[in-house]
Amino acid sequence: MKHIEVDLSKAIAFVDKGNFNQKCKLCAENDLKLKNKTGVGSDFLGWYDFPNKISDDLVYRINETASILRKNSEIIVVIGIGGSYLGAEAIINTLSGHFHCSKNNKPHIIFAGQNLSGDYHSELLSFLRGKKFSLIVISKSGTTTEPAIAFRLLRKELERSVGKEQAAKQIVAITDPKQGALRKLALQEKYTLFEIPSDIGGRYSVLSPVGLLPVACAGFDIQQLINGAKSMFEISNSNYAENPVYQYAALRHIFYSDSKTIEIIANYNPLLKSFSEWWKQLFGESEGKDKKGIFPVSVSYTTDLHSLGQYVQDGMRNIFETVLSVEIDKFDLKIPKDNLDHDNINYIAGKELGYVNKMAELGTILAHVSGGVPNIVIKIPELSEFYLGQLFYFFQKACAISGYLLGVNPFDQPGVESYKKNMFALLGKAGFEKDISEI
Amino acid sequence: MKHIEVDLSKAIAFVDKGNFNQKCKLCAENDLKLKNKTGVGSDFLGWYDFPNKISDDLVYRINETASILRKNSEIIVVIGIGGSYLGAEAIINTLSGHFHCSKNNKPHIIFAGQNLSGDYHSELLSFLRGKKFSLIVISKSGTTTEPAIAFRLLRKELERSVGKEQAAKQIVAITDPKQGALRKLALQEKYTLFEIPSDIGGRYSVLSPVGLLPVACAGFDIQQLINGAKSMFEISNSNYAENPVYQYAALRHIFYSDSKTIEIIANYNPLLKSFSEWWKQLFGESEGKDKKGIFPVSVSYTTDLHSLGQYVQDGMRNIFETVLSVEIDKFDLKIPKDNLDHDNINYIAGKELGYVNKMAELGTILAHVSGGVPNIVIKIPELSEFYLGQLFYFFQKACAISGYLLGVNPFDQPGVESYKKNMFALLGKAGFEKDISEI
Repeated sequence: MKHIEVDLSKAIAFVDKGNFNQKCKLCAENDLKLKNKTGVGSDFLGWYDFPNKISDDLVYRINETASILRKNSEIIVVIGIGGSYLGAEAIINTLSGHFHCSKNNKPHIIFAGQNLSGDYHSELLSFLRGKKFSLIVISKSGTTTEPAIAFRLLRKELERSVGKEQAAKQIVAITDPKQGALRKLALQEKYTLFEIPSDIGGRYSVLSPVGLLPVACAGFDIQQLINGAKSMFEISNSNYAENPVYQYAALRHIFYSDSKTIEIIANYNPLLKSFSEWWKQLFGESEGKDKKGIFPVSVSYTTDLHSLGQYVQDGMRNIFETVLSVEIDKFDLKIPKDNLDHDNINYIAGKELGYVNKMAELGTILAHVSGGVPNIVIKIPELSEFYLGQLFYFFQKACAISGYLLGVNPFDQPGVESYKKNMFALLGKAGFEKDISEI
Repeated sequence: MKHIEVDLSKAIAFVDKGNFNQKCKLCAENDLKLKNKTGVGSDFLGWYDFPNKISDDLVYRINETASILRKNSEIIVVIGIGGSYLGAEAIINTLSGHFHCSKNNKPHIIFAGQNLSGDYHSELLSFLRGKKFSLIVISKSGTTTEPAIAFRLLRKELERSVGKEQAAKQIVAITDPKQGALRKLALQEKYTLFEIPSDIGGRYSVLSPVGLLPVACAGFDIQQLINGAKSMFEISNSNYAENPVYQYAALRHIFYSDSKTIEIIANYNPLLKSFSEWWKQLFGESEGKDKKGIFPVSVSYTTDLHSLGQYVQDGMRNIFETVLSVEIDKFDLKIPKDNLDHDNINYIAGKELGYVNKMAELGTILAHVSGGVPNIVIKIPELSEFYLGQLFYFFQKACAISGYLLGVNPFDQPGVESYKKNMFALLGKAGFEKDISEI
């Protein structure tokens, strides 16, 4: 069975081999802390073996629920923010292809409650009018501001459209397994209910019902996603010298210590743009603490070679790149010959566009490396549920280990309370009166 | 008349007032170099007064051409990469609202030749089958690889669909005014032809036919865009102590000298995402030279407060933010009351979502500032052609001055030749044989 691979060849020249080996050993030690739950944040390690633990019953129930929603909806609105939606959006956008909003495959999946934009939510409500839609609301607490507002708006619209009783049959809640506002409402109103395991935080939750239900609703194979994650669980349990997760985490830490404090994740297939957004949350929110952390950036090449490419080649030398390199595209086409050849590209006539893209990729990696930017290349056989599952697990584990190497808790996010406190004070929320005078 | 404004109040505490004043004076001196064409790269200063120079005839011709294309097309495909499309995409995506691909307003504008993806271009060709479409191809040379390939593919499809003679009536070329492969072909085939002024480089070309024609095709008011730019030309000619362009450029340079080498452009309206892409090319490609330059990053809040927000609050302290703060949204809606208030948000029931967004914005700016991240706030009355025109001109001028302060040529991009050389060698292009052995 094929799997994703980490190609170190364009990065290894930048590091001392002994140091790299040492770091890989250190990764193995930190992985033990994860396995044995002896490191910081060990209340939130449920993701570590969830792919092996998720029951067939749960997968069946998710698929059944998705099947019913799909049969009865033109549109399924997924309400959630941060880790509650980024994973699902990553998978759906990667696998749905381009121009999918215009394709006839129903239902369409649309996201809401991922911002506070009046424009966005007004236009969404207009767009939904006259259409059959269902809601999936994803929130551990049920009180996070953005999804809470969106859920109020959309539930009101759904109830106006089909009545309260019918609406309840078209709402699914994914929330805390024991408590919380959303759970309470879901039980009361008899919404279909799924659980976010208590020991899995938002940005580590894509392979739980949080990601799996929306993805199943989009018509994709969640069992293959889980299988991919399971296979990466096995691969990442291997000897430290050959372990791709340790190798990636080790390189990242060495580069960071060498003042390469910006990591650019690059793809050559624009379908991976949303995947990059998921990756940025995972690493940025896990590592950005105590004035430390690698700053995560995403680009899509060759598009952004005509934008940030100049900077990557010649700007400050504090960058390394991680390339998501997909071996085969789903579709391809040949470059036609032209008798006049006015544009001088007959030399590639008859070649597939994917081949030209691959040479651009190789040419760019070599150019950037020669400019002093290490390139870690992650080879992905193709874009499918299985390999995405591998990728998600690979990055989650690498991120947890990276956080431990950095000396931070990879599983919390205390910094985000600052703006929330200010926002609540400015909005006049009870209990925040003291903060308003501070402001 | 209202105009965009730079609010320094959340940034000025981070700088020494004397130093700031000094830097503003320096900006004025560098602006003189631009005016008098005595600085580096002075062959490419056509953008500086183009809004005042663009003739009514040209505007009329652009609108006429757009009108014909609009009448005869369900879809207009704009082929270009980098500065040849990012400006147009920024304006169209900002003003078209959300869910516009599903709206009935025709024609739809779609971009091509902005990557080498076989997936993307295959699916585009499938999508176009059976639909009436026109092409606008934008390339100074006509030989840039990505748009050249896309143009071949799309021209072939168009000719197959309507015949060569009719196809020529549905193709518009925007290219060099005197020479080049695309100009040659356009004259031969009698395509409608527009010129990219020789003294305007790609990332400074949005207010030339490069941006104006696609935007007119989308149904927007290009005269207002130009008027906005003209008004900013006037505003940015003011005394150095009150000049917003100088103030912004001065602050950027002081922060950079203070090791705040990452600039995050943040919006609270996701319609501005594409604008941020344009901004990243402008600054990244202009400044990223000689191992120098501020690294440009974009986020959309409050979405990314649940992603990169933790890092911005608590990660490495080498960041400053520039907030695009829009005063009024086009649409808004009130948060409904709920008798149960299970989600604890009745305290904002009856308030508009835009108001909550504004308090989130203020709360975040204050939180980030207290965490050591200076915030420059650019106040935009509303999202319209006029204020976008002001924004484009504001940033272009600020970028040129920033480049001079940094001691680089803001108008070239020599670094991008490295990957191209490698790519051509790998593809076996004649003349690159020596490079293949180097590789």
